[in-house]
Amino acid sequence: MGATASESRPDKPDEKGLRMTATRFFSDNAATVHPAVMDALAAANHVDTAYDGDALSQSLDATFSELFETDCEVVWIPTGTAANSIILAHFVRPWQGILCYEEAHIEVDECGAPTFYSGGAKLMTLPGRGAKIDAEALKARIAGIRQDVHQVQPAAISITNATEYGLVWRADEIGEISQIARANGMKLHMDGARFANAVAYLDCAPADVTWRAGVDALSFGFTKNGAMMAEAIVFFGGSGGPGVRELKKRGGHLLSKGRFVAAQIRAMLTNDLWLDNARAANAGAATIAMACGERLMHPVEANELFVRLTAAETAKLRGAGFDFYDWGEGAARLVVSWDQDAQAVAPLAAAIAAL
Amino acid sequence: MGATASESRPDKPDEKGLRMTATRFFSDNAATVHPAVMDALAAANHVDTAYDGDALSQSLDATFSELFETDCEVVWIPTGTAANSIILAHFVRPWQGILCYEEAHIEVDECGAPTFYSGGAKLMTLPGRGAKIDAEALKARIAGIRQDVHQVQPAAISITNATEYGLVWRADEIGEISQIARANGMKLHMDGARFANAVAYLDCAPADVTWRAGVDALSFGFTKNGAMMAEAIVFFGGSGGPGVRELKKRGGHLLSKGRFVAAQIRAMLTNDLWLDNARAANAGAATIAMACGERLMHPVEANELFVRLTAAETAKLRGAGFDFYDWGEGAARLVVSWDQDAQAVAPLAAAIAAL
Amino acid sequence: MGATASESRPDKPDEKGLRMTATRFFSDNAATVHPAVMDALAAANHVDTAYDGDALSQSLDATFSELFETDCEVVWIPTGTAANSIILAHFVRPWQGILCYEEAHIEVDECGAPTFYSGGAKLMTLPGRGAKIDAEALKARIAGIRQDVHQVQPAAISITNATEYGLVWRADEIGEISQIARANGMKLHMDGARFANAVAYLDCAPADVTWRAGVDALSFGFTKNGAMMAEAIVFFGGSGGPGVRELKKRGGHLLSKGRFVAAQIRAMLTNDLWLDNARAANAGAATIAMACGERLMHPVEANELFVRLTAAETAKLRGAGFDFYDWGEGAARLVVSWDQDAQAVAPLAAAIAAL
Amino acid sequence: MGATASESRPDKPDEKGLRMTATRFFSDNAATVHPAVMDALAAANHVDTAYDGDALSQSLDATFSELFETDCEVVWIPTGTAANSIILAHFVRPWQGILCYEEAHIEVDECGAPTFYSGGAKLMTLPGRGAKIDAEALKARIAGIRQDVHQVQPAAISITNATEYGLVWRADEIGEISQIARANGMKLHMDGARFANAVAYLDCAPADVTWRAGVDALSFGFTKNGAMMAEAIVFFGGSGGPGVRELKKRGGHLLSKGRFVAAQIRAMLTNDLWLDNARAANAGAATIAMACGERLMHPVEANELFVRLTAAETAKLRGAGFDFYDWGEGAARLVVSWDQDAQAVAPLAAAIAAL
Repeated sequence: MGATASESRPDKPDEKGLRMTATRFFSDNAATVHPAVMDALAAANHVDTAYDGDALSQSLDATFSELFETDCEVVWIPTGTAANSIILAHFVRPWQGILCYEEAHIEVDECGAPTFYSGGAKLMTLPGRGAKIDAEALKARIAGIRQDVHQVQPAAISITNATEYGLVWRADEIGEISQIARANGMKLHMDGARFANAVAYLDCAPADVTWRAGVDALSFGFTKNGAMMAEAIVFFGGSGGPGVRELKKRGGHLLSKGRFVAAQIRAMLTNDLWLDNARAANAGAATIAMACGERLMHPVEANELFVRLTAAETAKLRGAGFDFYDWGEGAARLVVSWDQDAQAVAPLAAAIAAL
Repeated sequence: MGATASESRPDKPDEKGLRMTATRFFSDNAATVHPAVMDALAAANHVDTAYDGDALSQSLDATFSELFETDCEVVWIPTGTAANSIILAHFVRPWQGILCYEEAHIEVDECGAPTFYSGGAKLMTLPGRGAKIDAEALKARIAGIRQDVHQVQPAAISITNATEYGLVWRADEIGEISQIARANGMKLHMDGARFANAVAYLDCAPADVTWRAGVDALSFGFTKNGAMMAEAIVFFGGSGGPGVRELKKRGGHLLSKGRFVAAQIRAMLTNDLWLDNARAANAGAATIAMACGERLMHPVEANELFVRLTAAETAKLRGAGFDFYDWGEGAARLVVSWDQDAQAVAPLAAAIAAL
Repeated sequence: MGATASESRPDKPDEKGLRMTATRFFSDNAATVHPAVMDALAAANHVDTAYDGDALSQSLDATFSELFETDCEVVWIPTGTAANSIILAHFVRPWQGILCYEEAHIEVDECGAPTFYSGGAKLMTLPGRGAKIDAEALKARIAGIRQDVHQVQPAAISITNATEYGLVWRADEIGEISQIARANGMKLHMDGARFANAVAYLDCAPADVTWRAGVDALSFGFTKNGAMMAEAIVFFGGSGGPGVRELKKRGGHLLSKGRFVAAQIRAMLTNDLWLDNARAANAGAATIAMACGERLMHPVEANELFVRLTAAETAKLRGAGFDFYDWGEGAARLVVSWDQDAQAVAPLAAAIAAL
Repeated sequence: MGATASESRPDKPDEKGLRMTATRFFSDNAATVHPAVMDALAAANHVDTAYDGDALSQSLDATFSELFETDCEVVWIPTGTAANSIILAHFVRPWQGILCYEEAHIEVDECGAPTFYSGGAKLMTLPGRGAKIDAEALKARIAGIRQDVHQVQPAAISITNATEYGLVWRADEIGEISQIARANGMKLHMDGARFANAVAYLDCAPADVTWRAGVDALSFGFTKNGAMMAEAIVFFGGSGGPGVRELKKRGGHLLSKGRFVAAQIRAMLTNDLWLDNARAANAGAATIAMACGERLMHPVEANELFVRLTAAETAKLRGAGFDFYDWGEGAARLVVSWDQDAQAVAPLAAAIAAL
């Protein structure tokens, strides 16, 4: 990843505290909260059970079980970092390892949170194209680990869908990875911070790219896609087993008014809001992609674009008010949010086309 | 503490998902969110900087510095468990200890979170009246620890204000503890989940019961007092030093849309809303206290009451619709929330008086 | 425990580097290594397999299985602190607890090692007479823990045999504790730093006070009893399950020349050397006990004595060259080692009788 | 590193429990203990102070200070894994990182021990020739890390001398690395499991390749070089600061009869035994190296050789009784121990020359 750019850090506070929708492309973390979610928060103010004892929280298992067409155990959590870390800490013991892409969010953008939550597990990284680890490389890596107490033995594999470079894992690709996981007694985790964008792109059943393809647990992200602070830890095939709620409580993630997180998730899943929002963002990205042509460093499948731009070109775009991250030298990252559809991004697409 | 009761666990989801304000006394964690906080959330939806880079987050240092009449470094955090744990993890090394009351929230209600965040620090407990550790007992405990590598050496003291039994630490009492802390090279932390109730009761400057009395850092709670999920880690006397933000990020508490936590805190501090809310809850508790008379197990200074009630009496109150926790045998805990003032609690006061 | 005394810390190095056997009563940690152990080390110098791949290490399972009359899995380890910590870390998850006596060695003399190795487990302490936790108090303590995620749930109980105050747990007493453990889904660990002294006192089969009484794993100490640095982690009833060797390696306890630890243990178990040594120490303690009469604070069953002595009396004994620890005010602790039998301790017994 | 070979694991116990000196080349971990060390153990049996309170332990600071021509704080420790881990845990906070070679022993052969001891620090790996990290690559790596809370910030660099591939770091090479460490506020650790072999090769003052070149702390290994289980943690320039002894105790590495570790180290440093032993091993390796000629994969500077051998050739050598590790396909690792000098290795050298 570029040394000077990141999804995760605006260097300085925005002095005016406000950016126009038409010009904000630095992160979907900065997107607005969807009105339906705001309404759900207001409605939840009349529920008064503490922690996760409320009916909203309790309803999540059934809601997700229906969505995924299988029994699910669901735990709401305020951040994706915590969701990823708790799942991984649940899957591995402190002396074990987690195989992942070398620029995976869990590896480069979470300050070591999965290692913290797991009590010391090691992230064991692999290269990959477009942030997808390669099945053959994965097999070779596993084969290269001596089965003794001196070397850390991996017990889980983590993939991100959509990937950190905006690509979408297909069901068969996931299946290849999950077969390797199964063959080696490992669990398969999917970081779905942009899972909605992946499903929207594939237009498939959520089950197809999760448990049917061998995924054991999903961090299902809603925050980037229209919620305020709400992610779902989803275990497929019934219960995830004991310990998950303890990890959540111990990490300080059991909110005393937890109903306000559950309410966000419920709102996002109502009337396919999660899909509509993702489709809008994907459409925005597709529009910009057409304007980028040969500049694209990766196929654009979800809502992120990695674009070759000279320093002069980035300066010109910034001069026009557009806000985005440099991605190393000669490149930039553009992220389209749920509140920026094809129409909203037209000015940026035009500006790029005019470069 | 009673074996069958707890502030922290409603055994079952509320089937109707709704309790009347006039009957809900089991926890201030279940209180509603104040309309001004809801408005602030709506307003923050137009701020679009990610993480804690937004102007709202950035403004907290100044806001608290003014409130506390000294330079403060402030970090927002969604839960009190995380706030306590991060401060304590910042103050002690993994092999050190934290002295606290034997029924302190950090000891009995946080699933070991301070030990988790600190990488293994030991909570070293002391008895106390009304959940206040006694200065003489504290000195004796410290004197009894051999200064060698075999015994865990405490490096911090944690007190709770208002206490777990609803009492309020006075400035001079805190000063006694902080002198012991200073004399032994320890930091003093205050768990202020109900700090507002303490200040409202004392009608003092917030500084008087914090840094002026020797407190190094405060977990300033807003969630129980009208916010949705918002607490402030406050370091007095300038910066808390490096590491706090890493602990927060690593714990998964750096929300991508952090402006929505900062906004809640700002709303709570605007026009003394935090004090007004606490005064209302305290007034409600005082009204009930008058009805309880000899039944009270502890003086009622904040918004919690511990009341002797026979099984028949608790059954009668519950039959009338009132919801609260048993507190061991022959006792109950009643908590009054910010949205239940003296008038709102009249029915309960009357019911108790009529027992 | 006394604030000014400890088994574990000689305040200053011994300037002459030597104490006479007849006067050294401050700790069996300072005892000599038995000649048979020294011989075994010399013999092991001709074995050249690394780590624990050597035949000596590999033989331990069979040797202990025969001694304990059941299948055992055995792991050698250089220190008792590590043995205790690894067993306990194996039995509990980071968010769980370990019930033990309030002055247990694991609680007050291991710098938090069990919490470190377990990734954060909490020691939950109980009072007891002579360092034996009481079955009724244990039941009450367990009953008082709410079964929710807010409170740490204990998953193991640890007892010490012989206890920290020199008493010996009988089989039926252990059985009472193990029944409570079983009934609550907990594992039972025995810290056997002085297990040999307990078995020697009871003159029973080692199985009687371990697995037959419900103990799941034993830290079997040899260092205090004539070895140089050698303890055995013993799991009864076959394998202890995966993870133990990883904990050992990760803790840095897999010695590259591990055969030298295994050799010590083999030597200690050959021809009942472990029992002979323990009997000698016990006999020495019994001789002193007779001289102490009413001064004894606890029955003397193993090799430790806790004795009421005035300041003048301790000064007199020290003036005569005897070396021991104060145990709070007006008391002292005397420890007899394997190399100090009834005859060797005669001068001290006489000196006490003459007080 | 080869997938099928390792310094660290003999797959099976040696049935006969004995290998001839002339044929054992699989690890210096399997070497014998030098007679002078055995004598020192016997002599230490008359010292009777517990833990590290004995005069031998207390003398180490002065002994190493003289050897290194600067004030040193020294802590003995039974294993190199623990020595490395404790130093690194002392240098970094749980959320920080440690830069090292991608096949460093701490990365691939210690089961994550440095992460365990540090409470979660991340090893951040770099490529290198002959297991030496390259200064330019190191600078680039550091420059590529964003200075924010999302990315783990390295706080220490670890190098191994002699390296994992048997090369020796020169003073100026170390200086290059230490300048980068200083410029970035990082500590520099040297894993000296084979430090003696490095110093013997360079024929320099120990200070030249440690503190004079900018090394902050050294894991000085004695076990592979003639001791039984003894390594020294050495901090240069006075005290290493508080915390090291707590880490040692907490890890279970404070042996109750610690004098027996200190005695080994004293024996190794007496009359330059450590250098004599290393010279012997180096000479043995040099003799074999001459026989290997073009087969060598790395220059042979210390006591390890990495040699290209076909499957037929390795079979032939093994048929002749020589014991060593495969190192991936078509290669083998040979390690010469202190008890195998130029003369002792003649048969192997001849056998290789005759291939």
